[in-house]
Parts: sequence; structure tokens; C-alpha cells
Amino acid sequence: MAVAELGHAYTTTDFSNSRFLTYVSSSTRLSYHRRLSYRNLPRTPTTAIRCSVTSDKIQAPVGIDSKQKPDCFGVFCLTYDLSDLKAEDQTKSWKKMINVAVSGAAGMISNHLLFKLASGEVFGPDQPIALKLLGSERSFGALEGVAMELEDSLYPLLREVSIGIDPYEVFEDAEWALLIGAKPRGPGMERADLLDINGQIYAEQGKALNAVASRNVKVMVVGNPCNTNALICMKNAPNIPAKNFHALTRLDENRAKCQLALKAGVFYDKVSNVTIWGNHSTTQVPDFLNAKIHGIPVPEVITDRKWLEEDFTKMVQTRGGVLIKKWGRSSAASTAVSIVDAIRSLVTPTPEGDWFSTGVYTNGNPYGIAEDIVFSMPCRSKGDGDYELVKDVIFDDYLRKRIKKSEDELQAEKKCVAHLTGEGIAVCDLPEDTMLPGEM
Amino acid sequence: MAVAELGHAYTTTDFSNSRFLTYVSSSTRLSYHRRLSYRNLPRTPTTAIRCSVTSDKIQAPVGIDSKQKPDCFGVFCLTYDLSDLKAEDQTKSWKKMINVAVSGAAGMISNHLLFKLASGEVFGPDQPIALKLLGSERSFGALEGVAMELEDSLYPLLREVSIGIDPYEVFEDAEWALLIGAKPRGPGMERADLLDINGQIYAEQGKALNAVASRNVKVMVVGNPCNTNALICMKNAPNIPAKNFHALTRLDENRAKCQLALKAGVFYDKVSNVTIWGNHSTTQVPDFLNAKIHGIPVPEVITDRKWLEEDFTKMVQTRGGVLIKKWGRSSAASTAVSIVDAIRSLVTPTPEGDWFSTGVYTNGNPYGIAEDIVFSMPCRSKGDGDYELVKDVIFDDYLRKRIKKSEDELQAEKKCVAHLTGEGIAVCDLPEDTMLPGEM
Repeated sequence: MAVAELGHAYTTTDFSNSRFLTYVSSSTRLSYHRRLSYRNLPRTPTTAIRCSVTSDKIQAPVGIDSKQKPDCFGVFCLTYDLSDLKAEDQTKSWKKMINVAVSGAAGMISNHLLFKLASGEVFGPDQPIALKLLGSERSFGALEGVAMELEDSLYPLLREVSIGIDPYEVFEDAEWALLIGAKPRGPGMERADLLDINGQIYAEQGKALNAVASRNVKVMVVGNPCNTNALICMKNAPNIPAKNFHALTRLDENRAKCQLALKAGVFYDKVSNVTIWGNHSTTQVPDFLNAKIHGIPVPEVITDRKWLEEDFTKMVQTRGGVLIKKWGRSSAASTAVSIVDAIRSLVTPTPEGDWFSTGVYTNGNPYGIAEDIVFSMPCRSKGDGDYELVKDVIFDDYLRKRIKKSEDELQAEKKCVAHLTGEGIAVCDLPEDTMLPGEM
Repeated sequence: MAVAELGHAYTTTDFSNSRFLTYVSSSTRLSYHRRLSYRNLPRTPTTAIRCSVTSDKIQAPVGIDSKQKPDCFGVFCLTYDLSDLKAEDQTKSWKKMINVAVSGAAGMISNHLLFKLASGEVFGPDQPIALKLLGSERSFGALEGVAMELEDSLYPLLREVSIGIDPYEVFEDAEWALLIGAKPRGPGMERADLLDINGQIYAEQGKALNAVASRNVKVMVVGNPCNTNALICMKNAPNIPAKNFHALTRLDENRAKCQLALKAGVFYDKVSNVTIWGNHSTTQVPDFLNAKIHGIPVPEVITDRKWLEEDFTKMVQTRGGVLIKKWGRSSAASTAVSIVDAIRSLVTPTPEGDWFSTGVYTNGNPYGIAEDIVFSMPCRSKGDGDYELVKDVIFDDYLRKRIKKSEDELQAEKKCVAHLTGEGIAVCDLPEDTMLPGEM
């Protein structure tokens, strides 16, 4: 038995010093270092981090190259080699650890999301996880705070947490990159300015993913304007499959389902096949034509066509603004839930007959939507992280017309960021403000 | 098949009007109303709540007395009778719904906790849940915001959400009451003042639980000073078993485990049998004597006695303060995680040989601790919501002495709130400020 074996050693060794750690490292892998990966940043004193291990306390196990690892944090610098544990340990049946990188990790959406990732709610109860948290120089203290709260949460599946401000280090070997970080729109700032400012961030992060992430990394872009940010990120990461890049429209889908449920007077679990088409902006199209309630097409259940064509879309889109008014802050919790839903839709098989929405690259799409943009469309997954576009959807003139408007907008946005996608000189002509209310 | 049967009806009926709902109500239970339970409060216009159902849209199903229900919210006013669904529905195998009341529901801890409750992480994937949210007049808008975010999250297990500001309505039939709401300590306020102010809240909530909650409601007090608040609540609820009242010390336990793991250089899942004794204040005693690492007593693993006796306790207690400094806000996320842990410890069997800490009523305790206070002690549970105190713990002079100090403090706190427990005139003599850093 593992405990008894270790117990024998314990009786003859002083476990408060480095020998204990060297001993344990014979059956476990320890990454001991708390290296500074962020450059030119004044170091906060290590003594203030109560739960961290400093290298003077413990010795490096032989055979681990500390240069190959990003900044581990505190207790997460003590990581077991899960494959090397005794058979009775529950971790024996666990899958191979996955690396999940999160940008904007010190923000409010992440403050909800990270704990969901660590709990097993997203990737399942047998999937150990390493979280790689990207913050900014300004937010570094908050990033440490989040890491401390993750330590104190004692999640068994959470085996590594590393923090940093350099995407080239934080994204290393990432199998998922959840890109939440973005600059909020300042006063008087146009959507074009925002496209440029955040586009630069996403161009850099795309380059970093291209350089250091897993070759099959799945990228979920949440920071706004998310469709074009995802396009920029993708264009800067030519070695990663284009279809791996997603722009989050799942919160819109969830809100649309709720509104349809309310109008029809059914519980929301009876609403299916809801597509959000297009851009995550006010040109987005919540599709009631293909949506179903109790398996029946929505237009047969909700016969109020005026409500469907006018009020429905408005209700989905103004939800965030209403919430800010009520609640005084943006919808961080439900956004995090929708990111969980979006990931789970890719790692679990889609229920028979249903689909989900996600903003993906349009090349090869069967709907006649312009190529070379990131557009939210209906998808199905076998649960392998990949997806395919749904073929059996119908269109009418109303739906076609509205999809076209969102398509036009995304093509205009693409022209605004040509300098960031390597496609020449940017020409920006965005007549309307299409930011969703309550979003930054 | 349910869908086909309903489909037949759909083809002959206009489902956008009330007949649809009346039809559905023949096989499902609908509670249609959105009644105002809060008294003397100016009503926010219903139109601003985008996801709510107003009674003019749908008719009341026969046989449901709307007076017997608290305020339902939005889509949660459309609730299925889970026991009456067709066999192919996944909900068929679900347990009977439980009612969970949460006070301070518009606050940051709840903003994390409610989504965990709704997701199934706490009570399991087959346990449908009704959330009853208690807020204040001031926070009512935020409370609606939280309910809206819960709507948009589409959690299948979350079947009812009701909101209100009157505990006599919100606590009705509650099987769990998670009491988080408390006034923060204002500038210059003494602990004695806080005991009085929050004690009054907990006295009222105890009376409300006594009047309307389930006769076996489990009560978890989080609002500070939580031990004495729990005592006050209990004393005002004589018809509810005294052992059902808990004061949360689980975050302290989790933090203690993390610190022991770090000092020993092991991952935190190897630390067990950690007790927090006493008050949730600086007199609390994180017990290293009975704690184990890899099944070995901690003093044999960590031989640095000075660290154990001095630094360890301090590290556990200052954690919240360090976090506030880093992060700019209090540890809402990890507090919510610890509430989840505390509940799960009562609804799942305690692992063989281990235990957990919770503040409970001392009457009949085997440790010689003074009776008639709420004191954190080591417990085990069969997973039925109940617990028993652990008998095989050891004490040394150091541990005894420190436990005595916390015991003395809680007895002094009890004297401060005699007017709230029905035990005469309050006499308050609390020499020290024992609030934990970073807590309000």
C-alpha cells in the first residue's frame, strides 16, 4: 500500500527539509520552481504569497528542466505524475492531463470560469487539468489572488496552475485557449478603434499560439469584437487548423432559448435547434425558423410572427443591457456558463437531432455565406473537440436578408483589420454602432 | 411518444395563446403567477424583466393555489411536474425536488454559489432544485439580475427560482437554508456592535425558519460572526433540531490543508483529518495534532514544531487579508467553493477514516467543550444530511489551551446576545478584536 510504504520512509527521515521532497520525487514528478516569466516587471515579494513554495525550501528533482515550464503557482508547483501512482488511487483511472490556457484570467468572467474548469464540470470528473493563466502587468496582483483562491479550493482535478503575462510562455502546449481578455471600449471610442486595439492583442496571441501551443489547440474567442478577433487570431496562426477557431455566440443562443420558452410557455429544456447566425453584434440573427419547441417548428408553436421577427431578436440583444441596469455589472456569471456550454458541446456528442451555435470559419460552408470570415452557424460534434456544419436547415427571404446584413458587416470589419491579418492596408467604413448593449 | 402526442394537438390549436398552456397543464404542473411577496416596495415595471411571464399571457391551471407559493421569477414560473413526465424523459429518474433558500442572494458569494447549486455540482446530477432567494429592499434590482442570469444559464436541474425580501415567504418549505446575508462592519464598529446588528437579522431569520421551513431544514450560517449568529438562529427556532444548525468553518479547513500541503511538499489531496476547532475568528484552532499527511500524523511529517504552533495558524488566518490586498476584493469564489464542500460533506458519505469540520451545537459533545455554544468540531456523515462527532481524536496541553480560549470567547459572545436568544439582559465584554483579516 502506498501510504504504508511511504510511512516506512517517513519514520527515518526529516520530512520538513528537502530530503523529503527528493524522496517523494522518486515516485512523483515535482516541478519545484517559481520562475519569473514576465519580463521587466518589478517582483512582488514572495513572502506575501502565503501558499507558495520558494526554491530555497526544496531542491530540484533530477531530470526536470525548469526552463521548459511556465511559472507554476504555489501548491501547484507540487505536481504528481498521475501515471505513476499506486493502483488503489482514484487518479489511476484518470485521463491524461490537459492544458487549458485562459486570457483575461484576472477578470470577472474568468473568476467564474476558472472554478468551473477546475471542478470537472467542463471536461468531466476523470479529466485532470492544468490551468495556464494569462494576465496583464496591471492585473498581476489580481492574477495571484485568483491563483490563491484556486489553491484554497483544493480541487482534486486541478493539478497545475501557472500564471504569467507573456502569451509565448503561457500558451505553451495549450490544448484549449479561452481568450477572454480584451480592452473595454473607452468613452468616445468607435467600433473601428476597438477593432484595432483588440485586434492587435489577438494578432499577438495568434502568433503566440502558432509558435508554442499544441498543433491541434482549440481556440475560443470571447473578447469583443469576438468574430473578427477570432479571424485575426486565426490568420496569425497559419500552422493551426482554421476550423479550430471559435467566436463565442453561445450566450446569445442561451438567451434566445429562454425567450422562446417564455413566449411559448414551456420550460427551456423543451427548446432545441436554435441557431445564432452571424456576428456577435446587433446584426446577429437568432433563427426561429429552424428552432423547435417539443420537436415542433417554432413558427407552428408561436404564431405571433411580429413577435418573432421584431421583439424576439430585440429581447435577446438587449438582455445584457437590462442586466447591467438591474445588477450594476455585466453578465459575467452567465457568460462563463455559456463558455462551459460551448466547450462541452465540442467534447460531448451532440444529442440526436439537435445542434449548437458557434462562430467558425466560413470556408466551405454549405449555406452560401461569404468565405473567409468567422460567422456563427449551426454545428454538431461527435465529442472529439471537432464539429461539422449542419446541412438540413431551411431559409426564407427574411432569414436570408438578415444573414446577409451580418455577413456584410463582418466583411466590412475584415477590411478594418487588413493590417492585422496580413492582407494589406486597412480601410474602415462601419456606418453603424452594432455593439450589443451591456457589452464592452 | 410525448413529442408526437403533443404534436398532434399542436396541429389543431393556436399555441401562442392561453389554450396551449391549459392543454399542457393537463400533463404538467404550471405555476403561472409572479406575485409580489415583498411588502411596501415600489414595484419595478414588469416590462423591464425581459424573461418573465405576466399573468395576462397565460391562465392559471385549475387546482393550484397561487397564495401558497412565493414569488416565482420569469421562466421559472413555468415548472413541470417532474413525476408526471413520459418515461423516455431523462427527468424520470430524478429525485424529488429540493428547496434551497439562500440569504444575501444578491451578494458576491451567492453570485458564485447559486450557479454551483443549479449546475448539480452540490446535490448531484439527478437532484432537481428550487432556489429561493432572499435579498433586501436595497438589493432587489441585483436580485432580479441574478435570477435573470440563472434563466439564461438554462440549467436543466434548476426548476424553480423565487425571489423576495421577506424571510417568512422565502423560507417556506426550505430543506436547506444557506444564510450568507449579513451587514458588513462599518468604520469604528466594535465586534459587539456587529454581534448585535447581525444577531438581530439571524434572530428574525431563525423565527422565520421555525415558522415556515421544513421541520428538518439544515441551516448553514456564513454571515459573520457566524458561530454566534448560528446560535441565535437556532435559539429562535425551537421546533427545528438544534443539531441542524451549522456555522461555516470549511474555508478555514481548506486553507489549513493547503498550508500543510505546501509545508510538507505534497499535493493537497494527501492531507486529511484536519479539524478547525472553535470560533470562526482569530481564536480558531487549526488542529495539526490530529491531522494527517499520507495517513501519517502531521507532527511526524512536519517536525518544525515552531512553524506548526505559530506560523501555521497565522497563515490560515491571514489568508483572506493577503487575498484582499492582491485581488482588491474578498474571497467570494473560494468561500462559495467551501460552502459547496460543507454541504457535500453532509450529503455524501465521509471517506473512510477521514472527517470534516463544521461549527455545530456543543450539547453532548465528547470533548469536554462547554455546552450551549456553536463550536467547530470534527464530524462524519453517512450522507443523509446528518452527522456525528468524531470520537477518536487526541489532545495535548497546547491544543486544550487553545481550544479553551476559543470556548471562552464564544461564551462571552453568547452573553453579548442574551437579549436575542431569550436568555435575559446582554452583558458584553469582548476585550480583543478577533475578526479574521479580510472578512467583514
